Amino acid sequence: MLSFAAIETARETIRGRVMRTPMLPAPALSAMSGAEVFIKYENLQVTNSFKERGALVKLASLGEKERQRGVIAMSAGNHAQAVALHASRLGIPATIVMPVTTPFVKVAATRSHGARVVLDGETLAEAQARAEAIQAAEGLVWVHPYDDPHVVAGQGTVACEMLEDQPDLDMLIVPIGGGGLIAGNALAAKAIRPSIECVGVEAELYPSMWNAIHGGDRPCGGPTLAEGIAVKFTGKTTLPIVREHVSGIVLVSESQLERAVNFCLTQQKLIAEGAGAAGIAALLAEPGRFRGKRVGIILTGGNIDPRILASIMVRELEREDRIVAIRMTIPDRPGLLGSIATLIGRMGANILEVEHRRHFLDTPAKGTKLDITLETRDSNHAHEIMEALAAEGLPATRISAGSDDIS
Amino acid sequence: MLSFAAIETARETIRGRVMRTPMLPAPALSAMSGAEVFIKYENLQVTNSFKERGALVKLASLGEKERQRGVIAMSAGNHAQAVALHASRLGIPATIVMPVTTPFVKVAATRSHGARVVLDGETLAEAQARAEAIQAAEGLVWVHPYDDPHVVAGQGTVACEMLEDQPDLDMLIVPIGGGGLIAGNALAAKAIRPSIECVGVEAELYPSMWNAIHGGDRPCGGPTLAEGIAVKFTGKTTLPIVREHVSGIVLVSESQLERAVNFCLTQQKLIAEGAGAAGIAALLAEPGRFRGKRVGIILTGGNIDPRILASIMVRELEREDRIVAIRMTIPDRPGLLGSIATLIGRMGANILEVEHRRHFLDTPAKGTKLDITLETRDSNHAHEIMEALAAEGLPATRISAGSDDIS
Repeated sequence: MLSFAAIETARETIRGRVMRTPMLPAPALSAMSGAEVFIKYENLQVTNSFKERGALVKLASLGEKERQRGVIAMSAGNHAQAVALHASRLGIPATIVMPVTTPFVKVAATRSHGARVVLDGETLAEAQARAEAIQAAEGLVWVHPYDDPHVVAGQGTVACEMLEDQPDLDMLIVPIGGGGLIAGNALAAKAIRPSIECVGVEAELYPSMWNAIHGGDRPCGGPTLAEGIAVKFTGKTTLPIVREHVSGIVLVSESQLERAVNFCLTQQKLIAEGAGAAGIAALLAEPGRFRGKRVGIILTGGNIDPRILASIMVRELEREDRIVAIRMTIPDRPGLLGSIATLIGRMGANILEVEHRRHFLDTPAKGTKLDITLETRDSNHAHEIMEALAAEGLPATRISAGSDDIS
Repeated sequence: MLSFAAIETARETIRGRVMRTPMLPAPALSAMSGAEVFIKYENLQVTNSFKERGALVKLASLGEKERQRGVIAMSAGNHAQAVALHASRLGIPATIVMPVTTPFVKVAATRSHGARVVLDGETLAEAQARAEAIQAAEGLVWVHPYDDPHVVAGQGTVACEMLEDQPDLDMLIVPIGGGGLIAGNALAAKAIRPSIECVGVEAELYPSMWNAIHGGDRPCGGPTLAEGIAVKFTGKTTLPIVREHVSGIVLVSESQLERAVNFCLTQQKLIAEGAGAAGIAALLAEPGRFRGKRVGIILTGGNIDPRILASIMVRELEREDRIVAIRMTIPDRPGLLGSIATLIGRMGANILEVEHRRHFLDTPAKGTKLDITLETRDSNHAHEIMEALAAEGLPATRISAGSDDIS
């Protein structure tokens, strides 16, 4: 089994080659949760995740002949860029196999670090099969994202830095995919500070470690915001360490993950991917568990698709009634849209979209349904506008869910 | 004139009360610019901007009687929250006057720090008049956002921390609004390291300091992404210091500001407001000026409207051809939309919007114009889809500007 000495050696290996990221107090999160929260910002790494630590330790462990043959990894995510960057810095040829559906920006980023990228397979499983074939044919060294003692030792360096900066932490919250990050960090944290408690977090849709620990059989699958921890199989290296050193696993829902990503955006002014914000989601999900404690959370990564991020931001505006859609049935005559738009403008709201619906029998023959999407200042403002329209004989109904309608 | 000793005293005043923010190397920005770039993350402050430094130093300078009477400030932005937070921590009653158009989230944030918020005036000038009236009537102490030696001394503490972390910086890049931040930091940096060069940045639309220094009369006004530095009048305290210690001012365009905000998002995984990213915009605008130098940039704040941020992110996707709109003229018959949508789906693109346009004479009587907005992987993918449609006898034209069409 992995020893703390291996993690201490890993710290020397990565010194000056992987960023010693800042850990900072998170006052808004502390106020909201009643815990004293510190966040370790691994999203600020060069490739924007903690994966560089384990990848570098594995690569640095290779002998001269292995380095000459080169390494291979299968990943559509953070592990790919981490291996590519550090292999290139060490002069080791790297091959990264990715599914053909991998977004171009991720392919380009991995290539920009000097790796050979092979795009093959519609799914991760197909890409995995192709990667194994290339490995066998070319005699390359496999760099596993978590099931490897060198990788686990590398990831464990995070907790060493956290406890150096804040030696009196009571708890660590660590996201779990295959378990490499939590295994390394639980082992290190317990060695440095035996009284510390380590709590893991999994997406509710992928409770593979929870199943392994509790002998459960919850289903694993489905589209999650936290694709970085959507892992179906726990590691042989990681499971026994988790069993020994981790005191509990919190399962977080998709809406808690979304809230956590949004919290990072609006309160911390930092970008977290879904898996990266899982620790914050756990705090939001079970605040009672952490209240009154000094809690260190690893924000593991920031590589989120900008489309998803933009959509999360807009959904939050809708939740806050700052984007509102209303519908009214009006007589279809010249000038009326002008009056409505003028009234709305005078009240300080911005019109985003207007649509007339003339078809269908629930609309009067000489009428039209008018759908308007508005930017408002807040819920009160939206309410005032609807009252002003009603006062002009133009009652409107909400067609977007209001803040009161969303759980 | 302000002395460096005042800034050293200010450091003692804020110690333990304002976050000592991290300064980190920015490898992507370094690679892009040819400079060795370090970013000081003032957006990580509790109220997400450097303004807390100056506000606290001013508040701490007040005598017992002034503290009892209380303070007043006029601000719709970062200064409001900074004054509110630190006044409340010191037990000083604070009144903040904001225009009625201030977004609710900013009002709520300022109130949450315990300040009395007075909403009055449609414009900043009207709010200013109201604030002056309240100040006179109630005998409150005015906390100016920049034209006050205590405030300038407080802001100057940023450079002290930067040069402590990286003593060999060759240049500082500092955004200029009224000049409080650059005056304090140029003075401090020159005192600590006389060989350092300090460069300011203004939005091209608000070149007030540039005008004052160069005796110019460029117009000031217009809607800028950098509303935090959209200031028409330089300070009496700040101008002479800038004249003595600042070696040049870079004016940045709106598109450079937008690129800088987006760069922070996608590369640094951090949220910057327009004014906050102005230093990065300067680096992008005039890379030759900084090449080969060790450059420290103050990322001053992260309070950007989520609507603006979401829109910047979507615009960037359009720029990268990851969101594309196409138009085709087709016969108006059953099944055709099905064929088109199936073809697009088979090629791995996601359809965001479909619109039929049947009116107007450029459409055949038995035809329709079909507008489709697509999510694609990249420019090549978009091109392949258009070729596949053409091969089926359905030539399409782009109706969104492509990546080649945008300067």
